[in-house]
Amino acid sequence: MSQKKQLNIALIGTGFMGRTHSNGYNRIPNFFPDLQYQPVLKTVCSRNEEKANAFARQWGYEKAETDWKKVIADDSIDAVDICTPNDMHAEIAIAAAEKGKMILCEKPLARTLAESKKMVDAIEIAGVANTVWYNYRRLPAVTLAKQIIDSGKLGRIFHYRANFLQDWTINANLPQGGAGLWRMDADVAGSGVTGDLLSHCIDTAIWLNGSIKNVTAMTETFVKERMHQLTGKVEKVKIDDACAFLCRFENGSLGLFESTRYARGHKALYTFEINGENASIRWDLHDLNRLEYFENSDDSQLRGWRSIHVTDGEQPYMDKWWVPGLGIGYEHSFVHQVADFLQSLENGKPCSPTFREAYETQAVCEAVLNSAAAGAWEIVNLASK
Amino acid sequence: MSQKKQLNIALIGTGFMGRTHSNGYNRIPNFFPDLQYQPVLKTVCSRNEEKANAFARQWGYEKAETDWKKVIADDSIDAVDICTPNDMHAEIAIAAAEKGKMILCEKPLARTLAESKKMVDAIEIAGVANTVWYNYRRLPAVTLAKQIIDSGKLGRIFHYRANFLQDWTINANLPQGGAGLWRMDADVAGSGVTGDLLSHCIDTAIWLNGSIKNVTAMTETFVKERMHQLTGKVEKVKIDDACAFLCRFENGSLGLFESTRYARGHKALYTFEINGENASIRWDLHDLNRLEYFENSDDSQLRGWRSIHVTDGEQPYMDKWWVPGLGIGYEHSFVHQVADFLQSLENGKPCSPTFREAYETQAVCEAVLNSAAAGAWEIVNLASK
Amino acid sequence: MSQKKQLNIALIGTGFMGRTHSNGYNRIPNFFPDLQYQPVLKTVCSRNEEKANAFARQWGYEKAETDWKKVIADDSIDAVDICTPNDMHAEIAIAAAEKGKMILCEKPLARTLAESKKMVDAIEIAGVANTVWYNYRRLPAVTLAKQIIDSGKLGRIFHYRANFLQDWTINANLPQGGAGLWRMDADVAGSGVTGDLLSHCIDTAIWLNGSIKNVTAMTETFVKERMHQLTGKVEKVKIDDACAFLCRFENGSLGLFESTRYARGHKALYTFEINGENASIRWDLHDLNRLEYFENSDDSQLRGWRSIHVTDGEQPYMDKWWVPGLGIGYEHSFVHQVADFLQSLENGKPCSPTFREAYETQAVCEAVLNSAAAGAWEIVNLASK
Amino acid sequence: MSQKKQLNIALIGTGFMGRTHSNGYNRIPNFFPDLQYQPVLKTVCSRNEEKANAFARQWGYEKAETDWKKVIADDSIDAVDICTPNDMHAEIAIAAAEKGKMILCEKPLARTLAESKKMVDAIEIAGVANTVWYNYRRLPAVTLAKQIIDSGKLGRIFHYRANFLQDWTINANLPQGGAGLWRMDADVAGSGVTGDLLSHCIDTAIWLNGSIKNVTAMTETFVKERMHQLTGKVEKVKIDDACAFLCRFENGSLGLFESTRYARGHKALYTFEINGENASIRWDLHDLNRLEYFENSDDSQLRGWRSIHVTDGEQPYMDKWWVPGLGIGYEHSFVHQVADFLQSLENGKPCSPTFREAYETQAVCEAVLNSAAAGAWEIVNLASK
Repeated sequence: MSQKKQLNIALIGTGFMGRTHSNGYNRIPNFFPDLQYQPVLKTVCSRNEEKANAFARQWGYEKAETDWKKVIADDSIDAVDICTPNDMHAEIAIAAAEKGKMILCEKPLARTLAESKKMVDAIEIAGVANTVWYNYRRLPAVTLAKQIIDSGKLGRIFHYRANFLQDWTINANLPQGGAGLWRMDADVAGSGVTGDLLSHCIDTAIWLNGSIKNVTAMTETFVKERMHQLTGKVEKVKIDDACAFLCRFENGSLGLFESTRYARGHKALYTFEINGENASIRWDLHDLNRLEYFENSDDSQLRGWRSIHVTDGEQPYMDKWWVPGLGIGYEHSFVHQVADFLQSLENGKPCSPTFREAYETQAVCEAVLNSAAAGAWEIVNLASK
Repeated sequence: MSQKKQLNIALIGTGFMGRTHSNGYNRIPNFFPDLQYQPVLKTVCSRNEEKANAFARQWGYEKAETDWKKVIADDSIDAVDICTPNDMHAEIAIAAAEKGKMILCEKPLARTLAESKKMVDAIEIAGVANTVWYNYRRLPAVTLAKQIIDSGKLGRIFHYRANFLQDWTINANLPQGGAGLWRMDADVAGSGVTGDLLSHCIDTAIWLNGSIKNVTAMTETFVKERMHQLTGKVEKVKIDDACAFLCRFENGSLGLFESTRYARGHKALYTFEINGENASIRWDLHDLNRLEYFENSDDSQLRGWRSIHVTDGEQPYMDKWWVPGLGIGYEHSFVHQVADFLQSLENGKPCSPTFREAYETQAVCEAVLNSAAAGAWEIVNLASK
Repeated sequence: MSQKKQLNIALIGTGFMGRTHSNGYNRIPNFFPDLQYQPVLKTVCSRNEEKANAFARQWGYEKAETDWKKVIADDSIDAVDICTPNDMHAEIAIAAAEKGKMILCEKPLARTLAESKKMVDAIEIAGVANTVWYNYRRLPAVTLAKQIIDSGKLGRIFHYRANFLQDWTINANLPQGGAGLWRMDADVAGSGVTGDLLSHCIDTAIWLNGSIKNVTAMTETFVKERMHQLTGKVEKVKIDDACAFLCRFENGSLGLFESTRYARGHKALYTFEINGENASIRWDLHDLNRLEYFENSDDSQLRGWRSIHVTDGEQPYMDKWWVPGLGIGYEHSFVHQVADFLQSLENGKPCSPTFREAYETQAVCEAVLNSAAAGAWEIVNLASK
Repeated sequence: MSQKKQLNIALIGTGFMGRTHSNGYNRIPNFFPDLQYQPVLKTVCSRNEEKANAFARQWGYEKAETDWKKVIADDSIDAVDICTPNDMHAEIAIAAAEKGKMILCEKPLARTLAESKKMVDAIEIAGVANTVWYNYRRLPAVTLAKQIIDSGKLGRIFHYRANFLQDWTINANLPQGGAGLWRMDADVAGSGVTGDLLSHCIDTAIWLNGSIKNVTAMTETFVKERMHQLTGKVEKVKIDDACAFLCRFENGSLGLFESTRYARGHKALYTFEINGENASIRWDLHDLNRLEYFENSDDSQLRGWRSIHVTDGEQPYMDKWWVPGLGIGYEHSFVHQVADFLQSLENGKPCSPTFREAYETQAVCEAVLNSAAAGAWEIVNLASK
């Protein structure tokens, strides 16, 4: 057995994403034991000391810390994992890059394209390994979709459509801001569903179907005022509750995207579909182990959408888990991203999506929000303002 | 255009099946105009004169009659369609055969195997064209299943399973017997779900998978007593409310069948599935335009059950109807059976299932009921007692 | 029995829609025998005499005619059913209205809003009964959706989305124009998928969710040139192969619509979904007997999308057909529209969608095409130019 | 924070189930941190030293061992987890019980009812905590089914049906016996699909629907001879490749069970359905996060099977994982069983299914195999021979 290398991780942020990432690291030794690099949970950081301590105990971090600056100043740390609310991404990432730390940053990269630009610049100057947690790419069914597309089976692409539908903010009495609800505070989150949900759809779309050229969008805030948890006052809601856009891809195909937190009956319905000349694919997060696939070259009488249960050892990532028919869950996408990040260190290759790639997603989000504000088509501009 | 030949039909019975058959005849000129024989609705017969008249008016029969014996004595009648309750099938069919009439008999052929035997004998002696309305065979998806199986794509067959689940008799206050409810009166119906529902499953199974050798069965009557509509008294319920059986087919495959009227949530869930060495098929009456198909030779990473929407012109019967994607309904199975019957007259070939074939289904039903009564395996005996 | 009144029908056009309408009329006596008005198929008209004769024979028209002007001049005709290609709708409808005929016009109402305006004016001046064949409204599941919405169960509406996806024109060798393919000739059809498919989605949307205020759209013609059947030359394709648009409804909800003939794997996938505060509904033409319904007030642990098999006698139109669980087909929507038209004559009420209502759909289509051309949001303008 | 108690685990067997159990233990600290008992992976045992060492390294066991007798003689071990092939269950369990160890035994309990009887006796005499890994009970959707049934919502039960369909042994060239394939060797496994797959179905059925009284069964071995990996010779296959049975439950309902490894297209399709007077439930392992539920008291026009995505915090176990809509996987059932076992130690209650309960499942399996051999109905006999 080759000697393992330890990768010392510091996690900043102990919310929902802190849990998914920590679980990702923890499962590597059991399921990806052959990787040369193995993560070591060194430090977890939260402004709230009690939270930091409890989190460290629960997830096995050696140390709890309350000041992120101390964390990135710690020479024993190899990689910084940023799971804070969006408003802290840029500052921490830039500082960490300057210290030469590898960075794994939760999505979206930042609140704005301008912030994102500074982050990309910092990381590229520092030349450190980096990745952004657009985790859905690494569900086996989604990765299989990528492989099918890359194989050329679809031929010329005509259409791409995706949506991400939730229903958890319909209740007008739900407050905004503060613990657990910072995603509803535009100052912290940058935007509403556009940055939170559509960014996932855009990341996958660019990965599967290439760059987006231009967009026309609309947004809506259905509940105009909500009590703000931090101020205790009823305040204007500034996030987008819903956002939809049409677009054109560089490859000539048409795109249709929609996201909302007001689609009663849908918890986290992320779906995408891509239609090519010769084949089509669709997927649905609520049934994440399945990929639907239509191949036109099948015998015309016996042609139909295939429901592929992506649980065989020869399908992406599945040799690491159980046996055919036995599904995995949401959390595995993070395990796979950790594994791929560690593998990328071994290979010396970038771990996609890098900050640079996530910047493009951010540029689409920015064009979408600008288009909605202006009521006009907007070109996706990769040069920040 | 060739000269059309008229086939003069007399319908005996004006219940639910009278309607489905009449609709079957009526649609032939519009949808199967090229058939040499075209049905003419001559006479409808019901013991109730008012009903007979109303039915004739509604469905376009030239004449209404109350005495079936007069109907079969009428020389202008070419074919007699028997839609009465089961207890009249044998008497009418035998008499009609003796008069040289063609016969289209509603399923099940009769109440018992012994009655069925007499019917088969009568019809074969008379040498008249005949068919039994096991209509589900002629839904396009089911016919496509037959074509796939006949093509050999499945290879060696291992398993066949079917069920027919309903829930309409759960209410203990539902009466038995008489108009609309004769199916719950064993004296009239012969049996409960076995003759009414399982007979469909068995007919399809024999058609698709060959003969059944032996069975072990159980039946149950969940509600033991119900008010009888004809006597006005609470009487013992003698039909089987539910019936399930295991069997072995001649081809070595194993069979599993179940039927009930106590499966809450299912209206008419007739499903079957057949598993072969190389491919499998399944079908569901509630989504009757779809056939599910799995082919093992598909690329192993992209293999999955195909959901075939059987609505293309090249799929069975569908060139007669609309365009791809636009489904047809339950009633079309009867139109197709009429068309096939007319075609069989043109071709001089039997229209399957004939009385002889329906007799085999009856033999399986009888073995099933005997097995349930005896609590033992029973051999399917094609020689009546 | 009350005395029936005959409604003498003349059908102009013998294509696919001529068949669906004729079947609609033919089935009324069997399935809607209680209606006071009963249709009589008097005349069918096609420029091609042979076709007209064959169609008359097949469908039971008393007379075949080649000149539509003679047809509308015929005093025995009560109602004119227009199934010609779109470029003839206006001329025939206006002439027929002037003769005081009732008019049943195939959708879309016309090629342009301006044509449509003239038709509405003519019909309203004439004061004749009229309807436009947006048939999908009258599938039982869709009508049930309307009833649910009208009951108020959804509460405030947030989202409406619909698409109509086909794949039959992907082959670049498919010609355009002429018999069977006039839908691909913009001069005849007016537009491509917008008028042919999206118009259905828009009609249903307005019916279910009210008026659309403004739109932003994009269209695409994927195959730029095709052989034209009438000229024999390769010509520029002027129809829209695909069209998508975002919109805002008067009620404040957001809309998302898409249609294409390039979605590999979809034959006629018309789907819609509406999300309200308290409940949501979705439907899919490929499984037309089902309606999916989510009700938030269900016990929160046991809440889920309900798959309603709309085949019970108490559900819309289904008392006319079979028994629970036994589905009907596409064609029944036309039977229902005929029945409702006849009923409307009895009641003296309009049969929705009237020309006036179809005009609104046309106005949305026009706004969509204008928006796509201009690359800008467009207001739906009910005043024609 | 209360002081945690360590529960020292020894795992015997390093196959597929060794992995699922080890993962179950490893995730407790992260996801069930509040349990008083926390597992410590002390020892793993395999006859193959290299395997034992590698497994220890990968899964974090402190020690590797090759002799199970040493393991159970080790005083530091609190609980023995038996994951060996079935032929070793009895000997190890009895020996471990005699040493006063808690025992977690992989299913089926043993090869025969007689072996199982000795195990139950041993464990009850020793009075040690015990459980059998019928893990599927603890998938959230299945546990929710149990809660619904226990609430009485179903009313009187009429039907229970279950199947477990696989297709991995169709290839006649697959050998039998030895590493990875001991499940195909009757001497080691006891039986084929009956013990391996039907036992799961039976365990769930008894849990949800009570005891089974009597059965009639059939079994089949489709491929009669296979090369045996240990002898290198072609030998008779003695396991059942497929098994189906009918049964009656104590509560008067009818049961139908089937299992096979020859159902082409199904990887691990474990499904069950239960039909009650007022409601029905069904579930499918291939979509393990969903439960389908039909409630007859829903508005009759809007009634339909509900597809419940069992991922909300208030649904069983789901407060430990992610947020609504984000599914978990197969492996989580084992984590839940570990958690429940630890909880049971805290509560002093048995952790179902105990050996005693698993014995009843074994008794049904034995009755099934006897029935198939005898070709006769067999009573489930809880007294071993």
